[in-house]
Amino acid sequence: MQVTGASLIAGDWVIADQAEAFFGFSPKLNKSLETPIYEASSDMLASAIEQAGLAFKTYRKTNYQQRATFLHAIADEIEALGDVLIETTHQETNLPIARLQGERGRTMNQLRAFAHALEGSQDSIANFGCADTAIPDRSPLPKPNTALDYLPLGVVGVFGASNFPYAFSTLGGDTAAALAAGCPVVMKSHTAHPATSELMARAMDKAINKCAMPKGVFSMIQAKRYDIAHELVGAPQVKAIGFTGSFSVAHKLLDTIAKRQEPIPFYGELGSINPQLILKEKVQEAGPTVADQLSQALLMGNGQFCTSPGLWLVPAASHEFVDQAIKNIQASASDTLLSPNIVASFKHSIAQLTSRDDVTLLAQGELSEQHHANAHLFATDIDTFTNDASLREEVFGPMAMMVTYDKESQLQRLVELLDGQLTASVHGTRQDLKKSAAVIEALEYKVGRIIENQMPTGVEVCPSMNHGGPYPSSTDVRSTSVGLNAMLRFLRPICRQRAN
Amino acid sequence: MQVTGASLIAGDWVIADQAEAFFGFSPKLNKSLETPIYEASSDMLASAIEQAGLAFKTYRKTNYQQRATFLHAIADEIEALGDVLIETTHQETNLPIARLQGERGRTMNQLRAFAHALEGSQDSIANFGCADTAIPDRSPLPKPNTALDYLPLGVVGVFGASNFPYAFSTLGGDTAAALAAGCPVVMKSHTAHPATSELMARAMDKAINKCAMPKGVFSMIQAKRYDIAHELVGAPQVKAIGFTGSFSVAHKLLDTIAKRQEPIPFYGELGSINPQLILKEKVQEAGPTVADQLSQALLMGNGQFCTSPGLWLVPAASHEFVDQAIKNIQASASDTLLSPNIVASFKHSIAQLTSRDDVTLLAQGELSEQHHANAHLFATDIDTFTNDASLREEVFGPMAMMVTYDKESQLQRLVELLDGQLTASVHGTRQDLKKSAAVIEALEYKVGRIIENQMPTGVEVCPSMNHGGPYPSSTDVRSTSVGLNAMLRFLRPICRQRAN
Repeated sequence: MQVTGASLIAGDWVIADQAEAFFGFSPKLNKSLETPIYEASSDMLASAIEQAGLAFKTYRKTNYQQRATFLHAIADEIEALGDVLIETTHQETNLPIARLQGERGRTMNQLRAFAHALEGSQDSIANFGCADTAIPDRSPLPKPNTALDYLPLGVVGVFGASNFPYAFSTLGGDTAAALAAGCPVVMKSHTAHPATSELMARAMDKAINKCAMPKGVFSMIQAKRYDIAHELVGAPQVKAIGFTGSFSVAHKLLDTIAKRQEPIPFYGELGSINPQLILKEKVQEAGPTVADQLSQALLMGNGQFCTSPGLWLVPAASHEFVDQAIKNIQASASDTLLSPNIVASFKHSIAQLTSRDDVTLLAQGELSEQHHANAHLFATDIDTFTNDASLREEVFGPMAMMVTYDKESQLQRLVELLDGQLTASVHGTRQDLKKSAAVIEALEYKVGRIIENQMPTGVEVCPSMNHGGPYPSSTDVRSTSVGLNAMLRFLRPICRQRAN
Repeated sequence: MQVTGASLIAGDWVIADQAEAFFGFSPKLNKSLETPIYEASSDMLASAIEQAGLAFKTYRKTNYQQRATFLHAIADEIEALGDVLIETTHQETNLPIARLQGERGRTMNQLRAFAHALEGSQDSIANFGCADTAIPDRSPLPKPNTALDYLPLGVVGVFGASNFPYAFSTLGGDTAAALAAGCPVVMKSHTAHPATSELMARAMDKAINKCAMPKGVFSMIQAKRYDIAHELVGAPQVKAIGFTGSFSVAHKLLDTIAKRQEPIPFYGELGSINPQLILKEKVQEAGPTVADQLSQALLMGNGQFCTSPGLWLVPAASHEFVDQAIKNIQASASDTLLSPNIVASFKHSIAQLTSRDDVTLLAQGELSEQHHANAHLFATDIDTFTNDASLREEVFGPMAMMVTYDKESQLQRLVELLDGQLTASVHGTRQDLKKSAAVIEALEYKVGRIIENQMPTGVEVCPSMNHGGPYPSSTDVRSTSVGLNAMLRFLRPICRQRAN
């Protein structure tokens, strides 16, 4: 299956005349890949958006069963791509084969979960619909018959994420949720895995043909230049944006969105240090076990999960916990990160932290290759950490900061100052949890998911999941990117009223 | 009950040193009122916001029953204000006494409806909560126990509306929804009814004392200068804004919000011409009846309802309908509008329309006083109307445009170009509705509420109501300002996860 470097524009694979080429990158070989990927032109994007607008008029009329069949077909076609998908992505990301197989399964499950929800739904797509019955003889005025339903917003722009090349990229959560809701998608592929995106778009192309869906219902744009991202979010026909990426890119896109006449939702997931609050009795009873769990969660995917535990709040003098954590980190193998930029940024942050007098480098893993990133565990005390906001910025990659505390009041003060987070875990005995109830209550207001005695990594895809959190972990705290409620991102209420 | 002109800042009635005064206005007497109202200072606003932030830490912990009791107490205290409230508002707005009594009842009912919802709620405030049960022995990984709940966003800024001095102002829908959700409110009073706002804030003050709520849970700011509005929406502690007002003010506030680091929801309701689509068989069967209903809805509140029917799409040669409408408008009495600015703006728009060659003035009511506004009914053909966007701008007041059409295809083209609307009604026989299904489907995507054979005025306050619509009728189409779901404006999901 030859990768052509073309973009999929409403059913056509297009390469612009005299398009510039860019190239994927092999983190493992630390060099560019050889397959040229072609910059989509602004005209191609405009055509994709226009076709999506036209497709919306047909696609929004599909019934739930038709949409469910389509989502199942997409999942089927992802499966039909077979090993070449996994191999291609492995080459582009160096994520382990087993991890990629698991993520592919999750991505198919996401599509099927929306399909099942649609199949099980009768009245209102969001299952949030309700109705009030008319009271024609009510005085002084008759009460009408009203029913609340949900309509799709229109064309959705989706930006792929580098760290989840399947589950949050081309045919990932936002695309699945938008299509389930009845919205066409114009997708900007992530430049860290363009060949993967092309394969995924081919699967989509087949599913569209199989289900006779309008061609404009999905387009995939290959582009490295920033302009095209701004053209996508600024287009009047685009009615919502799903984005996973950096704080700085998100804010540039928000500036462009602010210049639109019509405000639109921007669902950005930006980053999180996912505080791990370890309480006193727990660390005494099970210090080494908790240290093992945290180390394993940190090292998973070499620290590149959005829920990677980057901040460990540990009672002072938790020697067994600390010793075990040091042992784990020292024993860890270095590995690649997703892109050379991410490696450079990680190393820069590590160098800065290492140079500080008020931060101690507790442990690091061996660096077996210069272009790898090795795990680092730093330590500081809670007052230093609380008083310096720069210490609370996310370092993307295998790094955690262990912050030691003495008193509940120190935790309370820190939690007040914490930025919004996707998740936080509290590790405590029943007695611990009771004693720290006030801190935990405050912590809830800083996170989208609060976890008792479990790791933040491994997001469960289920109806009651919430993935998203207060700013800056995400830009719209009202919404989740995981679980069935993700459909609500792309729906809006309508009331239908009649006399009786 | 003497009006002092002070602002309520977290339980204290405050007038700034050397504060400038401004004055309410009597539309009836067409002159300023005599009671001075004092400009709140920026320090007073900052203090209100800070106290609201502190109050949030207590108020968010109140249980549903405590909040319900508080909401009932607010309604009780509004009632206890008695006739002085009605008289004061009548003086400030010249809205009829009976209308104000009705609106007061609705405002109390809104508060009580949220209270009842809270009393009836057990698990999750929004009744949207759900849970997934753990499967500890699931392979390859155990499934955790997860529960979805909703948390209040934090301090909410509310701007009062001029046209609903009770139901969408000081203690109106947004204030009620925010308090029900667990959010403190900092309220900027509308300058068209400052004395009404003071009385309402007094009722709130009493309810806060009666229920021993934290004083910072509600503040009311009297201010005419624009800066203070921008200070409110720009304050980092403010987490959401409820606004009803003009397009131009909303966009200035949105510009300030775009400069914040943290994006926040801005729920603005801006305006709507509420298209009335009258179909062929219906107009033949019941033309004069529909004309009566439309005229009555238009004249209600002298055209100052947000759901006033401003656009009548009528089949060509509907002579009986047209004759009856002309008769009704000609027989209508002129009346005041809410403020001199609104009168000036209305008259300016009427003069512009009257001067056009391609628009006909079909009928007008008698103008009995120069500072009144009299009803105007204009007419044009659908091609003129479709080709000139300026004809589709809202004229706030008693004005409607009758647009005649011949063919379904003309309607389809117009609907494509329509801006977003709060509501649209379709007046048709069963046969009509069947024949025009495609136009009606398209119309749904332009409105927040679609109505069969009823008037858009008279919004029912019930769970399945939706009040809001695609931009520019509102700035966040995902949300309603009326009905129980209005609470969702000020809530956000959280997932609580544990092993089992």
